[in-house]
Amino acid sequence: MSPPPSTTMKAARYYGVHDIRIEDVPIPQAKEGQCLVKVAWCGICGTDLHEYEAGPILCPSASKAHPITGETLPVCLGHEFSGIITSLGASLQGSWKVGDRVVVEPVISCHSCYACQHGYNNACTSLGFIGLSGYGGGLAEYIATDEQYLHKLPEGVSLQDGAMVEPLSVAMHAVEQAGMKKGDTALVLGAGPIGCFVIKTLIAKGASTVICSEPSSSRRRMATLAGATHVLTPPREGDIIAQVKALTEGNGVDVSFECAGVQATINTGIGALRPKGVCVNVAIWSIQPKIDMNALVLQEKTLKGVICYKNNHSSALSYLASGEINLDGFVTGTAALADVVEKGFKELINNNEQHVKILVSATGKEE
Amino acid sequence: MSPPPSTTMKAARYYGVHDIRIEDVPIPQAKEGQCLVKVAWCGICGTDLHEYEAGPILCPSASKAHPITGETLPVCLGHEFSGIITSLGASLQGSWKVGDRVVVEPVISCHSCYACQHGYNNACTSLGFIGLSGYGGGLAEYIATDEQYLHKLPEGVSLQDGAMVEPLSVAMHAVEQAGMKKGDTALVLGAGPIGCFVIKTLIAKGASTVICSEPSSSRRRMATLAGATHVLTPPREGDIIAQVKALTEGNGVDVSFECAGVQATINTGIGALRPKGVCVNVAIWSIQPKIDMNALVLQEKTLKGVICYKNNHSSALSYLASGEINLDGFVTGTAALADVVEKGFKELINNNEQHVKILVSATGKEE
Repeated sequence: MSPPPSTTMKAARYYGVHDIRIEDVPIPQAKEGQCLVKVAWCGICGTDLHEYEAGPILCPSASKAHPITGETLPVCLGHEFSGIITSLGASLQGSWKVGDRVVVEPVISCHSCYACQHGYNNACTSLGFIGLSGYGGGLAEYIATDEQYLHKLPEGVSLQDGAMVEPLSVAMHAVEQAGMKKGDTALVLGAGPIGCFVIKTLIAKGASTVICSEPSSSRRRMATLAGATHVLTPPREGDIIAQVKALTEGNGVDVSFECAGVQATINTGIGALRPKGVCVNVAIWSIQPKIDMNALVLQEKTLKGVICYKNNHSSALSYLASGEINLDGFVTGTAALADVVEKGFKELINNNEQHVKILVSATGKEE
Repeated sequence: MSPPPSTTMKAARYYGVHDIRIEDVPIPQAKEGQCLVKVAWCGICGTDLHEYEAGPILCPSASKAHPITGETLPVCLGHEFSGIITSLGASLQGSWKVGDRVVVEPVISCHSCYACQHGYNNACTSLGFIGLSGYGGGLAEYIATDEQYLHKLPEGVSLQDGAMVEPLSVAMHAVEQAGMKKGDTALVLGAGPIGCFVIKTLIAKGASTVICSEPSSSRRRMATLAGATHVLTPPREGDIIAQVKALTEGNGVDVSFECAGVQATINTGIGALRPKGVCVNVAIWSIQPKIDMNALVLQEKTLKGVICYKNNHSSALSYLASGEINLDGFVTGTAALADVVEKGFKELINNNEQHVKILVSATGKEE
């Protein structure tokens, strides 16, 4: 084991709304069953922005600990990250070695609730995340993490792409849960990071038609980059449902993906489906939208909620390794950890539509 | 072939809101491929009441014909009925005989739209019903109907039970679409006719726990009669979701059925599910309810619309023939065709909660 170069590191710690501090904290040690990972790149997620602007939501509060991690505020942020193993705790020597490039699957679950017992740990009633609920985070120089959370990054997949495997896994899970089959037609509502990754996944899995509806012109460019076969502008082009039907022989799409989470899109996602179609909701909501239930009923459509991923990281890594999915062009900015609030959080909040992913490293460069 | 006893018959014809007239019309003749059926019993459905109070909805208007039947108002009402074949059109002599007891599966579909072409004729874009959209109806003394709409009533199943096979098929389809398995737990919201038939079906198919939530005390009695294992009173017993969880080891039910179609119930149907549970919406809506999308998302639940039935009549008839389902006690009133408005429609509107089914025959008795 090579010891870390110093005993303290920088970490972005969340104290509450508009209060993220870059602090010097002790470098963690890899305990039994853990690896110490030097973070290479860490993405900032919409969830992180919500915590910054309106949290704590998934983060614990200062007084109420997360039921699994037992941690209260402050917590280190960052749950989309890649890195390199720098030391190993006891009992890991066979499986992992110093120098291994890894990504972290950050879901923390209780292993005892109904969901966990039935194999849906992503729907755990105490669901938490490394980088939100405790156990350190990727917006730091190092993290010590249990072996169970690690995946090896295949040769040829960059550390930057590695930092995007988490949101790509979200997209792959959503597409899987939709029951999408090769040749299917699809509608994606919203071309933020998740919408773009859903488009990428649909194309990689052989969708014949992938229509995206997105009001922002810069995001529409991203949808095109992601491979959407048709990109529509609501509401300028009028009724999106009619446009989608015109593009699908009058039938509607087989599957749709609600990646916007606004009242204006959810009923489009349902209305634009063919009979028996499936609308997968990937977005998290800040309102309870009004749903056109009769549209669901009269053509026996299905509205399905999905959260996170379930065994999707390996598959996402395979698609990246084979080149079936490439994420070129999706890193729209980089920042050094010291500048993460100004050049990361505030940049994303102020210029949200210009970005897919801003990636953060200790220095803002890859070491 | 024995000729009908006269050349005219009584029929309840719908002209518009609050305008159903009992008229003398010609007895139809069985054309090629048709049987002439003397109606035994015909139920009045919630859909019929909606037409009476706020139609035309599924009925065509006076000026716009139904796209398949080509008929405009007036139309004969009644789509839940049984009867006896009294004459046969050409080419039917092998399959059917005079005296056969039958029930009618009243769905009219176009056979050419996407839904019909893919085997979901219940989601046909031009969906219509015998007894609402034309082709006669069961609130008449006779109906001439194509062989394709007929099922033979098995020996031992009464003509009254036969008149309830249509709503029972709705319930069987809903339970089937929920993916309910033997031993599953279920919640049924609303104990109107469909809610009661859903309870019956769940019990017959081996549900271990069937909880019903229903505000009306007389309907709660019907839920108990139907076999519900637990009957809850909202909102007097407080949080129905908490009650349901307490009855299901804290997990929530496997499947739920929205049979009320009101804002107060739909989020209960979602919230009371276990992770990955399925809420089937059977009700037709007059509002767009607000949905707690995050409840759907965070535990990966599914909200599914269902309409009518698809090959469920045979199965419903088998359950009745074997005695696995019996409908004793569900006929809460009978009326003669001449009195159908006063003793059928108005009685159901004014004393709705006292009734499951009012059945109508020519004389108010079985002949």
